[in-house]
Amino acid sequence: MKRIAVIGNSGNINENLKILCNELGKKLGERFIVLSGGRDGVMEEIAKGVRQVNGQIIGILPFEEKGNKFNTLEIKTGLDFQMRSFVLIKSVDAVISIGGEIGTAIEILSAYANKKPIILFNGTGGWTDRIQKVLIEGKYLDNRKLSEVYIANSINEVLEILETILGE
Amino acid sequence: MKRIAVIGNSGNINENLKILCNELGKKLGERFIVLSGGRDGVMEEIAKGVRQVNGQIIGILPFEEKGNKFNTLEIKTGLDFQMRSFVLIKSVDAVISIGGEIGTAIEILSAYANKKPIILFNGTGGWTDRIQKVLIEGKYLDNRKLSEVYIANSINEVLEILETILGE
Amino acid sequence: MKRIAVIGNSGNINENLKILCNELGKKLGERFIVLSGGRDGVMEEIAKGVRQVNGQIIGILPFEEKGNKFNTLEIKTGLDFQMRSFVLIKSVDAVISIGGEIGTAIEILSAYANKKPIILFNGTGGWTDRIQKVLIEGKYLDNRKLSEVYIANSINEVLEILETILGE
Amino acid sequence: MKRIAVIGNSGNINENLKILCNELGKKLGERFIVLSGGRDGVMEEIAKGVRQVNGQIIGILPFEEKGNKFNTLEIKTGLDFQMRSFVLIKSVDAVISIGGEIGTAIEILSAYANKKPIILFNGTGGWTDRIQKVLIEGKYLDNRKLSEVYIANSINEVLEILETILGE
Repeated sequence: MKRIAVIGNSGNINENLKILCNELGKKLGERFIVLSGGRDGVMEEIAKGVRQVNGQIIGILPFEEKGNKFNTLEIKTGLDFQMRSFVLIKSVDAVISIGGEIGTAIEILSAYANKKPIILFNGTGGWTDRIQKVLIEGKYLDNRKLSEVYIANSINEVLEILETILGE
Repeated sequence: MKRIAVIGNSGNINENLKILCNELGKKLGERFIVLSGGRDGVMEEIAKGVRQVNGQIIGILPFEEKGNKFNTLEIKTGLDFQMRSFVLIKSVDAVISIGGEIGTAIEILSAYANKKPIILFNGTGGWTDRIQKVLIEGKYLDNRKLSEVYIANSINEVLEILETILGE
Repeated sequence: MKRIAVIGNSGNINENLKILCNELGKKLGERFIVLSGGRDGVMEEIAKGVRQVNGQIIGILPFEEKGNKFNTLEIKTGLDFQMRSFVLIKSVDAVISIGGEIGTAIEILSAYANKKPIILFNGTGGWTDRIQKVLIEGKYLDNRKLSEVYIANSINEVLEILETILGE
Repeated sequence: MKRIAVIGNSGNINENLKILCNELGKKLGERFIVLSGGRDGVMEEIAKGVRQVNGQIIGILPFEEKGNKFNTLEIKTGLDFQMRSFVLIKSVDAVISIGGEIGTAIEILSAYANKKPIILFNGTGGWTDRIQKVLIEGKYLDNRKLSEVYIANSINEVLEILETILGE
């Protein structure tokens, strides 16, 4: 089974984003092993969805923190918030980004630096929308063209892009 | 489900140790989520046993290395051999040590520093046997008494100790 | 003495950028302890300038790599290229950014996430110029306003901004 | 200039050990760049000695901790207590060990795993004395013979061993 990371806001998120994350979590949980930063906000709502379909959701946590209650496995990295993101990104085949503040921005760039395909869920705000303004040729994050950045406008488009890039 | 790390030699190991690790892997795989350093030697034989009973075996790997073929999930830490051991140790409830060279020695001490109970599988050689000579009061690794070190002489004894310390 | 990180392109850089970095290195080396990623490109030219005025230049290196010949001290982090950047950023009072590909972008965001003031040397290309398009209120990198991003158009402006923010 | 790490107890240390560390710090500070874990106890007393002879003393600190007041430079690794020890060890040419609890034990083993020569200052207690009981052929820490462990009984012997192994 392929492994997918979902990255996005911690903390409070609005009701629409919760519903979107739950639904996406269900769809991903049926098809993939899902990994996240293991904490609250987008991460928790995705995890909840994955669990509703009996999927696997792995939380890659900073320091020795305890994660949200839906994680099926927790990896405690001993690393700070940003450094632990690199363990998350290196361990997956593709990354989906939803909203997000500076931590999510670092994860998007880290995905690219580690040659992982990135799907930006358009319209979810924060760095997921902001980073689209600085894409080179509409899909790269620097001149080295290390991996491609994709834009999705719906859960169906996310799944179609994953099917194309992961070949399954 | 509780999570158990098994640490020990990488590289070639003898036939007796292989049989022991396979058998231990089966017993652990039925009861626990098993984590290891994800590579060859003791780690691979344990993983093989876990898979034979359809258990979960998570490899916590250095750098972006690929692990042995039995891992059900691989975490690629981006950290070097020794630093990645701390991610392994922090993510479990107890540690079982089998044989081992310097990397295993660091993992035993790391388990103690992180307040995790450690079971030394007596008679398996290397640092698992060597460290027994320097235990304080027969069970501590320094004066702070951060966690206890247990000695087991058989797979049954390992399982009994786990039952006692994890309360299940 | 305050500590300043200079971040920017590795690899080949053009003659104008070399001259700029040498000159900036001299000015910084007279006033500050200078830290960098320790490798070639912008890092090496800055280091050369620092040494010409007998300053201190500390290279924070990935893995156990050897750095450029001008470093007065090298710290070998055992961490990969991006993770080691966090050690660099955490160890300084302010960050100056020159040009740069994805590694520099991660360092700019890491500086902000770690609440360090960042000076973008305008007109040096790459992410130093690109990131300016997505600043919030012209000076922040997300809604948390963790630190300020400054734009400088000359070496004198860099030094004036440093004087203001570091109070010396 | 060669770089030497001194490792040993944090926290309170007795008066004799303080005098020993001050004196050793002075001798090292005249000849080498000295690195330590940057905190109190042995680290602080060594640092004090180094400063008395205007030497350089670099503290390699956990997380974003502030170190003792004698450090001439502080590197803030963002890593926990044990993981940051690997940055310290990788950055030096040789290691001197004084007393020490579990953190020092991990540093001794880390030095060996990273092929660095280690000098145990005999009679200073803790793991510096304890580890001597398990040396293989009186000088190795596993069967791979990655580096040599030396025993010194005085500051003069420490300096003589350093001269021999570093060739200066």
